[in-house]
Amino acid sequence: MKPITIWGQHAIAELLHKGGLRGILYLCPNKKKTDKLRKLAEASGIKTILTDEAELERLVPGQRHRGAVLILEEMPLVYQSDLKYQLKQLDQPGALVLLLDGITDPQNYGAILRSADQFGADLVVVTERKAAPLTQAVVAASAGAASYVKLVTVVNLVKAIELLQANDFWVYGADLAGQNLWETRLTGRIGLVMGSEGQGLHRLVRQACDGLLRIPAQGHVDSLNVSVATGILLYEIRRQQGWRGSFQPGAQH
Amino acid sequence: MKPITIWGQHAIAELLHKGGLRGILYLCPNKKKTDKLRKLAEASGIKTILTDEAELERLVPGQRHRGAVLILEEMPLVYQSDLKYQLKQLDQPGALVLLLDGITDPQNYGAILRSADQFGADLVVVTERKAAPLTQAVVAASAGAASYVKLVTVVNLVKAIELLQANDFWVYGADLAGQNLWETRLTGRIGLVMGSEGQGLHRLVRQACDGLLRIPAQGHVDSLNVSVATGILLYEIRRQQGWRGSFQPGAQH
Repeated sequence: MKPITIWGQHAIAELLHKGGLRGILYLCPNKKKTDKLRKLAEASGIKTILTDEAELERLVPGQRHRGAVLILEEMPLVYQSDLKYQLKQLDQPGALVLLLDGITDPQNYGAILRSADQFGADLVVVTERKAAPLTQAVVAASAGAASYVKLVTVVNLVKAIELLQANDFWVYGADLAGQNLWETRLTGRIGLVMGSEGQGLHRLVRQACDGLLRIPAQGHVDSLNVSVATGILLYEIRRQQGWRGSFQPGAQH
Repeated sequence: MKPITIWGQHAIAELLHKGGLRGILYLCPNKKKTDKLRKLAEASGIKTILTDEAELERLVPGQRHRGAVLILEEMPLVYQSDLKYQLKQLDQPGALVLLLDGITDPQNYGAILRSADQFGADLVVVTERKAAPLTQAVVAASAGAASYVKLVTVVNLVKAIELLQANDFWVYGADLAGQNLWETRLTGRIGLVMGSEGQGLHRLVRQACDGLLRIPAQGHVDSLNVSVATGILLYEIRRQQGWRGSFQPGAQH
């Protein structure tokens, strides 16, 4: 796997707090606040190399590194484990799982992970071979949220949908031929499947869903951007579930 | 202004249909369907140059041009006219105007214009100096929708908000300190103001709004991507207005 380069004190601090990293931290000691990062790195078992601005500029040309560059051997996933095991942990009534059927654009992938974090998706499921890798571009587009979202990779998305259904999830796919989103009752435990940018859902994936959802819209081009559509669907599901950052006592869900 | 390069038969056909262009169309005549484009270009008064694949590859290296590249002297706006005049044309009860307070990222700007088109925003207002220019990157990110959205540029966004208010619009700004979006009654004629990526709304702009709206969410990073947030707000306004691609007879709005 290609090494991942992360820059900026904020993004690096977030990753170091999370732990489980392997890599090297390059710090420019005459910059503010680098001491805190160095201590964090030490606590995480990450080697720190003190260097100068010219070296950092060489590592990430033209980027606003603010005195810190972290080079990781690979991007850590929060969880990279078995879907079956993860679903067992999700016993709450208003659980929400997002499944991505081959999102390839890093900008969209990052924005989707950011929305998943914002709307508290309990799990994001991606296909092992078709999904975009979790690169620096994805992490940047997610504004750092990528490292907080519980990601599970699966080989077969149809089997993942069936596993969700066996665990009392209703699984909906986003599809232009689906039901009007706001006229569909979306409470309970929900799985949401988003198709790829140009192609939408694959036939077998669409067939495996319990229902299809359409965002009522009408424009001159085909559809909404996939990360915008994902945000709207997550919002509407959470609205109907009565979630507002968390579930309120007594709320329906 | 820098010339704008558009490629792909579909995107070019859309622009030619719209008309009002100045530029040159490069066509590879041994590709399918180029005849139709050539006739469209003739009807639009656009000069066509027949050439070969190598020349097109030189014009847009590595892009999927499908035998057609259009080089425009400038990107046409559907309308580039007076806000006062435009608002006079908007007499319907469920009018929706989107105001952008300094969106600078072309990817976000394009995705926002695409959503504005999808949710039938009647007008998009941008500030003359702060907004990103309507470049090829914006047009591409909008999937071509940029050329359909009615754009009006203004010098002063606060004055634009006051003009909307004088025309019976309720103007809401997106703000993390605002009211819960789905608990706010959003019917009637609505103006929606979106702030820039990092900074949000400027103080004077925020003060000029009739109300502030917050998308209930809670994550580890600050907020949603601005184009995702815009999509969600447009969706929720249209949902409450009872719009579904168009207004249904008898619907509340």
